[in-house]
Amino acid sequence: MTMFVRTPEEKVLRDPVHGYIHVQDEVIWKCINTRWFQRMRRIHQLGGAFMVYHTADHTRFAHSLGVYEIVRRMITEVPDLREALNEREKMTVMLAGLLHDIGHGPFSHAFEQVSNISHEYYTCKIIEEDPEISGILESAAEGLAKEVADVIRHKHPNTILTQIVSAQLDADRMDYLLRDAYFTGTTYGEYDLARLLRTLRVSGDRIVIKESGVYAVENYIMARYHMYWQVYYHPVARSYENLVNKLFLRLKDLMDEGKTADGAELFLPVLQGRELTLEEYYPLDEYACTYTFSLLEKAEDPILRDLSYRVLNRHLFAYRANTRGNIRSVKAALKRAGFDPRYYLVTDTVGQAPYVPYRGDSGKVIWIRTHNGDVRELSKASGLVASLVKGPKLSDDRIFYPAEIE
Amino acid sequence: MTMFVRTPEEKVLRDPVHGYIHVQDEVIWKCINTRWFQRMRRIHQLGGAFMVYHTADHTRFAHSLGVYEIVRRMITEVPDLREALNEREKMTVMLAGLLHDIGHGPFSHAFEQVSNISHEYYTCKIIEEDPEISGILESAAEGLAKEVADVIRHKHPNTILTQIVSAQLDADRMDYLLRDAYFTGTTYGEYDLARLLRTLRVSGDRIVIKESGVYAVENYIMARYHMYWQVYYHPVARSYENLVNKLFLRLKDLMDEGKTADGAELFLPVLQGRELTLEEYYPLDEYACTYTFSLLEKAEDPILRDLSYRVLNRHLFAYRANTRGNIRSVKAALKRAGFDPRYYLVTDTVGQAPYVPYRGDSGKVIWIRTHNGDVRELSKASGLVASLVKGPKLSDDRIFYPAEIE
Amino acid sequence: MTMFVRTPEEKVLRDPVHGYIHVQDEVIWKCINTRWFQRMRRIHQLGGAFMVYHTADHTRFAHSLGVYEIVRRMITEVPDLREALNEREKMTVMLAGLLHDIGHGPFSHAFEQVSNISHEYYTCKIIEEDPEISGILESAAEGLAKEVADVIRHKHPNTILTQIVSAQLDADRMDYLLRDAYFTGTTYGEYDLARLLRTLRVSGDRIVIKESGVYAVENYIMARYHMYWQVYYHPVARSYENLVNKLFLRLKDLMDEGKTADGAELFLPVLQGRELTLEEYYPLDEYACTYTFSLLEKAEDPILRDLSYRVLNRHLFAYRANTRGNIRSVKAALKRAGFDPRYYLVTDTVGQAPYVPYRGDSGKVIWIRTHNGDVRELSKASGLVASLVKGPKLSDDRIFYPAEIE
Amino acid sequence: MTMFVRTPEEKVLRDPVHGYIHVQDEVIWKCINTRWFQRMRRIHQLGGAFMVYHTADHTRFAHSLGVYEIVRRMITEVPDLREALNEREKMTVMLAGLLHDIGHGPFSHAFEQVSNISHEYYTCKIIEEDPEISGILESAAEGLAKEVADVIRHKHPNTILTQIVSAQLDADRMDYLLRDAYFTGTTYGEYDLARLLRTLRVSGDRIVIKESGVYAVENYIMARYHMYWQVYYHPVARSYENLVNKLFLRLKDLMDEGKTADGAELFLPVLQGRELTLEEYYPLDEYACTYTFSLLEKAEDPILRDLSYRVLNRHLFAYRANTRGNIRSVKAALKRAGFDPRYYLVTDTVGQAPYVPYRGDSGKVIWIRTHNGDVRELSKASGLVASLVKGPKLSDDRIFYPAEIE
Repeated sequence: MTMFVRTPEEKVLRDPVHGYIHVQDEVIWKCINTRWFQRMRRIHQLGGAFMVYHTADHTRFAHSLGVYEIVRRMITEVPDLREALNEREKMTVMLAGLLHDIGHGPFSHAFEQVSNISHEYYTCKIIEEDPEISGILESAAEGLAKEVADVIRHKHPNTILTQIVSAQLDADRMDYLLRDAYFTGTTYGEYDLARLLRTLRVSGDRIVIKESGVYAVENYIMARYHMYWQVYYHPVARSYENLVNKLFLRLKDLMDEGKTADGAELFLPVLQGRELTLEEYYPLDEYACTYTFSLLEKAEDPILRDLSYRVLNRHLFAYRANTRGNIRSVKAALKRAGFDPRYYLVTDTVGQAPYVPYRGDSGKVIWIRTHNGDVRELSKASGLVASLVKGPKLSDDRIFYPAEIE
Repeated sequence: MTMFVRTPEEKVLRDPVHGYIHVQDEVIWKCINTRWFQRMRRIHQLGGAFMVYHTADHTRFAHSLGVYEIVRRMITEVPDLREALNEREKMTVMLAGLLHDIGHGPFSHAFEQVSNISHEYYTCKIIEEDPEISGILESAAEGLAKEVADVIRHKHPNTILTQIVSAQLDADRMDYLLRDAYFTGTTYGEYDLARLLRTLRVSGDRIVIKESGVYAVENYIMARYHMYWQVYYHPVARSYENLVNKLFLRLKDLMDEGKTADGAELFLPVLQGRELTLEEYYPLDEYACTYTFSLLEKAEDPILRDLSYRVLNRHLFAYRANTRGNIRSVKAALKRAGFDPRYYLVTDTVGQAPYVPYRGDSGKVIWIRTHNGDVRELSKASGLVASLVKGPKLSDDRIFYPAEIE
Repeated sequence: MTMFVRTPEEKVLRDPVHGYIHVQDEVIWKCINTRWFQRMRRIHQLGGAFMVYHTADHTRFAHSLGVYEIVRRMITEVPDLREALNEREKMTVMLAGLLHDIGHGPFSHAFEQVSNISHEYYTCKIIEEDPEISGILESAAEGLAKEVADVIRHKHPNTILTQIVSAQLDADRMDYLLRDAYFTGTTYGEYDLARLLRTLRVSGDRIVIKESGVYAVENYIMARYHMYWQVYYHPVARSYENLVNKLFLRLKDLMDEGKTADGAELFLPVLQGRELTLEEYYPLDEYACTYTFSLLEKAEDPILRDLSYRVLNRHLFAYRANTRGNIRSVKAALKRAGFDPRYYLVTDTVGQAPYVPYRGDSGKVIWIRTHNGDVRELSKASGLVASLVKGPKLSDDRIFYPAEIE
Repeated sequence: MTMFVRTPEEKVLRDPVHGYIHVQDEVIWKCINTRWFQRMRRIHQLGGAFMVYHTADHTRFAHSLGVYEIVRRMITEVPDLREALNEREKMTVMLAGLLHDIGHGPFSHAFEQVSNISHEYYTCKIIEEDPEISGILESAAEGLAKEVADVIRHKHPNTILTQIVSAQLDADRMDYLLRDAYFTGTTYGEYDLARLLRTLRVSGDRIVIKESGVYAVENYIMARYHMYWQVYYHPVARSYENLVNKLFLRLKDLMDEGKTADGAELFLPVLQGRELTLEEYYPLDEYACTYTFSLLEKAEDPILRDLSYRVLNRHLFAYRANTRGNIRSVKAALKRAGFDPRYYLVTDTVGQAPYVPYRGDSGKVIWIRTHNGDVRELSKASGLVASLVKGPKLSDDRIFYPAEIE
């Protein structure tokens, strides 16, 4: 009767955020047991924030299971979605949730900056080209691999699927806010997931929230806001990421000069800025990179050696507000101390609107359905969000440099 | 060496919100064991919201212990406060926290509306005039009763004490947000109390928050916002309170006509609108009132009987938006069904700014101390709060009426 | 297709223990809105422990909703139960869970001791004879009231239903352990409900636990053990209950002497020790009783006055180990101070086996199903429980008396 | 006045288990920032259980901070300890808590089995010989390094210090039970830390628990019991550890035959079974080992290749009860499938008494002080523990082998 094979018995994985992750389909279970999926055990969920919050060692592996679980609950518990999607679409969107981060590299931002290729690109490539994963998907249903990838690249004809996995209120964010809150030990990222799910509806080709769920959405928006400023944009996290950036930059500069360092061969393909084959990309996990850094601690080049030492032993850059005066005095101090500003000075601005209102793509905003059936964009339905959208844009602008020069 | 007698061993009371309540002073322990303090066991913390949230049966007794505990932590754990206050002031403010709600009547808002006298007035009266409580305070230190009452009536010369107990960021609100969140089971009211306490400082005669605590303050402001709209202003809670209001109104109208009802004598002194003696006020707890309502279920007057039945058995009023059209049609329906609108129609508007900026009273706003030592009002230091303050004022305007007429 | 009417939309009630209580059937919703069910809002879940744990003001109303919710989850989420029961049996057992405590009087133990009639008796009487409740049940399905009562009185032909509601591992205990833990703020009563439910199976006419759930059962057994000794048998809780006992005893003695006291008429029918009509029983909630105690504070009889004062203002009895020496010295001190030991001395022994093994009633023990399909009683399947069962019986034996004589 | 330098401002680290970790001393802060301490970020707290519980990626780094924090609370909040220890002893025991795991290798049990040298040995060596750490300690106070190491090797003259860090109720276990429970998401390991600390006393040269804390101790004993069986002895965790064992065994056998493999040089010193220099030991963290395993996936030796693949991609061994019949049939199947039982068959027995009563070392048991001042060993003071100690010894005996042969 069903087109997909069920597992003989439901598998459950204990998860502190969701209680349990429930797996009922063979294709899901097989994907979890692939080498690419298991590789995510070796990549932190948080780029640099595990250097601020010493318990934030949770991985993309755990997050991916969590996103899958939220998608599964959505299509099972939300009556409108249960009815709007057919069996194949349900499997497609569960797989898209499960696999959406499978192409992530180590040290996310630093790594993408040097490689110039987005993790979404590799995610789709793995889903469609890795023999193990594409094999599992194609055996389950011909054409499934491309459909899953299409959801991730926003090309699937049924846009509901994309909205479930990637929008301003999607299973990805829903999981990571709760998960990052739990593992950092902040309470800021908590919001009422159960209530959000209860108020989800489908209206035409849009996912909407019932008006009675507006407070739950506001709560979620504020959770995001607080997590950005308290965790993701924490200056110490950025300091760590900036150090890794500079380490890669130094490696690249050396490579351009024709020099190399023991262990650095792992990074060569990336530093060349070209697209990697999957077999070149696969070994690049945080365990391998960190081990390589430990080799680079003994490199000939003193800058490489120094930057590696700082990364490994958490001798992070200090930081100040990005003002002309500060830049001037830091530059002078760097000069006095003999630090090359190309590797020892970073200016870094971050900013994030708590909510981005409608700008032409209806799949990206949050829609509220009022009692009488009208659908309005969130900033028109919530006085709180209206205030936030009109308010000043928040940003944080800093410079980072070695603590020793202070 | 210390002027106040310590308890032989520290007393601790298990409390789910704070872990434990710690009592180390005889005078605190004795106040807890007075009949006026124990009476608060018989008054709900939440006016009508325990009719919405079936687990919200927590009392003013528990809340008062919680406020005391937060005050105790402030003056013990916050170095600036530990140094700024002398021993007598510390005892005064702990007692003010402990006793600040002791004059509360049952069904807070409904009751104060009919009695015209604020619970703060009775609180001070009890502290200064009840022989048991004023006796305990005066034996501990002459003049202490008046000093405690002065904190509550904002007359104490050291305004720091009042700021601790009654401001926009005070021990009272700090406790009730967490407590109401815990006992309703909502997560909305949670914020980071430990961090707030860690960033409290004293600057001159003002309590301020270090700049690094701005996110924690924003988090607290948002917790308040969500609790107001999800709990305190919940239309079902207001429906219950409005019903109790109407019941009192009917009693008063009957009294004015020279009629009475079995059991109603308990309420006579209040309905006369005059100040009560403490012995008249004491028996007015929610147990006594609710029992009286059960007697009124058998009153001769049919309106009184009906309203009592509704209150006791949760046959609450229904509600709609307060529009001319709705009022017109509800009035017509009431007429058809034979309901007197004086007792069966309520219009009710609620509204609450998430934060009220400076309007002349420096003790009432939240102050932030920046890195360089400047003190700025919260809406000048937080982009988020600035947005909220400038945004539209939020309010909710409804009419309430018997569900049967729909 | 279904014999019972569904509610137009699922109703959900926020509950901190279960997240939400889900109501999908009209008959359940209507029962919740009856006066007898609402009366449970006025009866504490914990006999005297709310005098120890100042936040334990949760009610039989909330507990009854929680038991219903666990039953609902069992028959929905446990595949074996979903299949073993027909629609009528499912409704019967949900109602039995919901209504199992509806006949509870105030101050449970004290009250039952003086009245000689168990709350189960009144529960069945209300279900079968109260016009409102029996009317709702009979309109839903003829004969339903008796079937629900039969589950409660262990007479229903399908013994699975009784096991769900009343056994050593039943929905009643499952809810109250978690609920009492949450509202007292102890962590002792926590156990893994989700896992227990996941390992529930039906084997013939018995509810069993899969072997992989043995640790979860052990955890539950230990939670019970700790809650008994830390909460239910706490000497301060027993002190309060013993005081209420003595107050009732004094009232009864006065009645036997032909005397009475203002307000005491409420208790007369109970003190006569006869079965009450439902209309005599209904008003006996804790609000009414407590109010009556406040009237008795002004009674003519000094013992009655004194005992009422102690109950209301938490001037509880002190306690010591029950030894001959202690009894002798307490008796002497009572005599010196002029206290009548009939009202001022209580000896009280409590004890509870962590688990009671098989003694002839297979519906009362916990059964474990091993991997190969054998069913063994818990103490044969768990080394831990075997140890506990063989160990010494634990009990606590104390005397209680006025603190003043010490 | 104090002999140790305070940090200019208290440092606090957010920790979900303890709220915050508080650092007030320069010497503590400096130790945290050493390369050996930071290395613990790269070693999992749980040997193999992170392969069962996908969120259990917490590290020895976080655990060490947690142990330090519990020690700090003990010597600050427990009056008896505050008075019993002088300033130097307090610093010594905080450092011993902080550094007790610093000599841990990767994959704890597997690694120690192959290296024959305990992590305690390396811990003391690092404390006394690493120039960075011993330098920090000796600058703070001459002789401090040896004193800290003496606590760890149970040689410090003040045995109270050892009892704080290493006994059946010590800061190490207190932290890891709570931490492992939090990060696996089980509730089994929770117990009431606040209450335990409140009932700690010093009696002569022993740490004891007040009689009123017996239930809290029982609760802790049961938490340990459940964690052992649900987490530490979980067969999947043991399967992973057994695989790593076999991988090391294969490497050693190859080495003995004079063969090697690319990357394996990292392990050579260990496989030789000799004591390592600190510089040989330092690089052996889990990141380096795991990276090496990924190199070994491409080794020439097929067994090495296969075992590495299994470890990295979680293709774990299956398991059955250790019976003669099972061994016989597994051996036969291994033969048929061509697996060498030396590397593909493991028999493994685990067992743990919930509590070990007195056997001659008074520092290792738990002591209870009764109301009248007697000190009794736990199994004499708790009926529950007496039952457990007399009950059958619990153990679990299994064989592990490749799942493919089933």
